[in-house]
Amino acid sequence: MFKLDKRLESDTILVKELESFQVRLMNARQFFWIVLIPNKPNLTELSDLNIHERNYLMNFAIDLGKFIKSSEKYDKVNIGMLGNVVSQLHLHIVLRKRNDAAWPGPVWGWELTTNLDQEIKQKRSKLITKFLE
Amino acid sequence: MFKLDKRLESDTILVKELESFQVRLMNARQFFWIVLIPNKPNLTELSDLNIHERNYLMNFAIDLGKFIKSSEKYDKVNIGMLGNVVSQLHLHIVLRKRNDAAWPGPVWGWELTTNLDQEIKQKRSKLITKFLE
Repeated sequence: MFKLDKRLESDTILVKELESFQVRLMNARQFFWIVLIPNKPNLTELSDLNIHERNYLMNFAIDLGKFIKSSEKYDKVNIGMLGNVVSQLHLHIVLRKRNDAAWPGPVWGWELTTNLDQEIKQKRSKLITKFLE
Repeated sequence: MFKLDKRLESDTILVKELESFQVRLMNARQFFWIVLIPNKPNLTELSDLNIHERNYLMNFAIDLGKFIKSSEKYDKVNIGMLGNVVSQLHLHIVLRKRNDAAWPGPVWGWELTTNLDQEIKQKRSKLITKFLE
């Protein structure tokens, strides 16, 4: 049985449950930061997914990042799979702007101080939902 | 015409030129850090690759990371596409250990102070070459 890691659960907000993964928003105002979490149990590395699952997940991430970047005029898409803190497999898509707080460094390890407010949360969720339509 | 970015060229060492991308080693002793650089001109995002190129590149990265992790008993594979500093599309594969200098943070943004010596360079290159056989 798949069980969402507690840290991922508390740091993120569910936007959509798809067949093979959850689409979640990092609860952070500073960055438009999406987390995809495959819903099979006992996954740690991308190599734990079969080739079809990998390709589907990666292309979803790439296409979603592209859609938001062009819709909202971001400067760069960052995609990463780290898992050093939370071992449950998850994929980060982070939309970056040249004037964001962490630029040009990575957002991972960055201190997230401000949660999403309702307005930004709805705006970001809506854009993701639009991509899914 | 593809032309390798000067920063990537100076920070990394060519291990193998494949048909669609270069396999390079970050010239850093601290981390076993591989950089894949697709050799088509004007690429910035993964979404600039067609779906076959993306899938091939990503699966190569995932499988190479898995091979090295299990061969050398690393604890985690980190894969990332950032491009905030160097815009030319490149993909990072970083083998991580729980006791490495940056753990559990990302290696991106980390100050790399020591270049590869001949012995480590050859050892890492050899392992990559073994994967390619």
